[in-house]
Amino acid sequence: MAETFTPSPLFQRVERARRRKHKIRDEYITLAHGSGGRAMHELVEGLFLEYLRSPMLELLEDQAVFEVGGDAQSAPGAGNGGGVTRLAYTTDSYVVDPIFFPGGDIGRLAVNGTVNDLAMSGARPLYLSAAFILEEGFRIDDLRRVLESMRDAAAKAAVQFVTGDTKVVQRGSADKIFINTSGIGVVESHVRISASRAAVGDKVILSGTLGDHGTTIMIARGELELETEIESDTAPLNSLVADMLDEAARVSTVETIHCLRDPTRGGAATTLNEIAVSSEVYIEIREDLIPVREEVKGACEILGLDPLYVANEGKLIALVSPDVAESMVARMRQNPYGLNARVIGEVKVEPRGIVAMRTGFGGTRIVDMLVGEQLPRIC
Amino acid sequence: MAETFTPSPLFQRVERARRRKHKIRDEYITLAHGSGGRAMHELVEGLFLEYLRSPMLELLEDQAVFEVGGDAQSAPGAGNGGGVTRLAYTTDSYVVDPIFFPGGDIGRLAVNGTVNDLAMSGARPLYLSAAFILEEGFRIDDLRRVLESMRDAAAKAAVQFVTGDTKVVQRGSADKIFINTSGIGVVESHVRISASRAAVGDKVILSGTLGDHGTTIMIARGELELETEIESDTAPLNSLVADMLDEAARVSTVETIHCLRDPTRGGAATTLNEIAVSSEVYIEIREDLIPVREEVKGACEILGLDPLYVANEGKLIALVSPDVAESMVARMRQNPYGLNARVIGEVKVEPRGIVAMRTGFGGTRIVDMLVGEQLPRIC
Repeated sequence: MAETFTPSPLFQRVERARRRKHKIRDEYITLAHGSGGRAMHELVEGLFLEYLRSPMLELLEDQAVFEVGGDAQSAPGAGNGGGVTRLAYTTDSYVVDPIFFPGGDIGRLAVNGTVNDLAMSGARPLYLSAAFILEEGFRIDDLRRVLESMRDAAAKAAVQFVTGDTKVVQRGSADKIFINTSGIGVVESHVRISASRAAVGDKVILSGTLGDHGTTIMIARGELELETEIESDTAPLNSLVADMLDEAARVSTVETIHCLRDPTRGGAATTLNEIAVSSEVYIEIREDLIPVREEVKGACEILGLDPLYVANEGKLIALVSPDVAESMVARMRQNPYGLNARVIGEVKVEPRGIVAMRTGFGGTRIVDMLVGEQLPRIC
Repeated sequence: MAETFTPSPLFQRVERARRRKHKIRDEYITLAHGSGGRAMHELVEGLFLEYLRSPMLELLEDQAVFEVGGDAQSAPGAGNGGGVTRLAYTTDSYVVDPIFFPGGDIGRLAVNGTVNDLAMSGARPLYLSAAFILEEGFRIDDLRRVLESMRDAAAKAAVQFVTGDTKVVQRGSADKIFINTSGIGVVESHVRISASRAAVGDKVILSGTLGDHGTTIMIARGELELETEIESDTAPLNSLVADMLDEAARVSTVETIHCLRDPTRGGAATTLNEIAVSSEVYIEIREDLIPVREEVKGACEILGLDPLYVANEGKLIALVSPDVAESMVARMRQNPYGLNARVIGEVKVEPRGIVAMRTGFGGTRIVDMLVGEQLPRIC
């Protein structure tokens, strides 16, 4: 991966397109607006951010990090005296279809997803909220199953539910059950992790195989008569992140974990693009290093999907200083959720804001953000 | 209101029924489970609490209050040293139908509702999350209108959006737009407000007229061809609560505001019942003291509704020490959201867990919790 890469005219065109301001031209919401890909970014940046703008929302992280205590609550972000606590705060709604699938259900997903969004800031997740929108006629036995999953997932991730809400809508006004979970965690004062902190030379670490969750959901919908052993990878990643922070503290006094993100909707390709744009760097990954299960590979071929764009619910991508990459991967492999961790690429200077992949044939192709609606209601 | 009240056999029967453990016997979710009344309490206490139980969730408040900082995050609730901050945290989903109505829309409701749930713990609301579930085909111009409302409501309540989420579901799998807002606020260390703190002798203060929001929504559905001037009362109550806390601090060194709740789904009747049960007291209110707009009274008669059970979105009920009640009401009347504040009843000993109303005819009738589905999708 040490060769120099000269940006082609195509790369330069993509780069220019990226710098254009997002504008919403659509008249109606489409499924693509929920895909995690380009249309969603346009909706978020062109509309939600336009109206609901705040300094924290602008960062477009998967969680807000702010200080409370001391003078922090009078002047958010300004306080730095004694008694200041740094909190991470996030929200996600879950509308996955079907609600039960191999490896999990909407309840487990709702807990793990929010735990992971907190963990990706380096936070220790503490408290969750749970808000339910139920469709009239939904089976209470199914609700019990979902709640059991939520209880077990919360126990596993060591978080507590502290507040909640229930709404019921008429039959046909929702689909069985939608769950929103928000969460609060505590971030140690020295931790500074952000999609904007990738540095040239950083190694790109992926914690395991790609595509398990999204492929499972597609198969569970029964649109194809595929018999497979594939399961969702839904898992709480806070223990893995705790191990990584511990390893970073062990090998270095400076912060060496720069970016952490879980590649959910839009897949690893979209996550890497977000980091490349936010940090204004070029990220190059290598196809032959990316782990994908054989069954997932096979199913994706039949389904016409690219595992790079398929949602994961128990994987993370970390960008770390090159000097700690090796020991970090070794440490991650000791955690049950990092057994297949490995370096899959690195960060370079140009062309900024771009992700590309060295293919098996020795070529290099641009890995763009997801365009269109690859998989609606995947989480 | 000074006469002695002897519990009749009916009162005693209601009291015994109250003490039974909630059990879910239903097989399917019905609209009543979302009404805010008895069926919802059974669902929450018999099922959600059973699975998602935590010390804070058990309190069944509209928000969780906990400490962070110091040693608080290692042993929640235990820390009391320097640098501890008390936070309030709440969540609510909004599914109101129609999404636009006289006096507001789903966006304004979603901001004010969560601001108010925080304020009812005495907290100063700071940060909100916003999570959207959009139906494919929803008009982007309508989304703009909703976002404008949210922006304006947040500015008015002096809160910031700091994190968010967007999901899209297929046409027919949701109804236009559902919004979840969660929120975080800071509670001053001396404030201790809870539905379980009502004390015998306390005065019951209502901040204004009852029934405006629920009646507005019913009329806006167009089920009746009524032409009225009625508007939703949706409003942020944090400035009113700040004034009340200030007044309490001015007149007394002890905490004299015992309970604060906003009577939303299930109306004032349900809120007062929650307080009576939680504090194990008898609450007696006087019909002739309860303010209801003439148009609301008229519309409720036609719609077959009792304003005591109709949702409000800009009102609060406070239970305060008798010695501060008069000055508290005077202070509340200086705030635009407390112009019609008044004492409507008081707290007595027996029969515990019961709310009753002295009627215009001099009789006393039990005011039970809402039973059944008075108004689905009111918020």
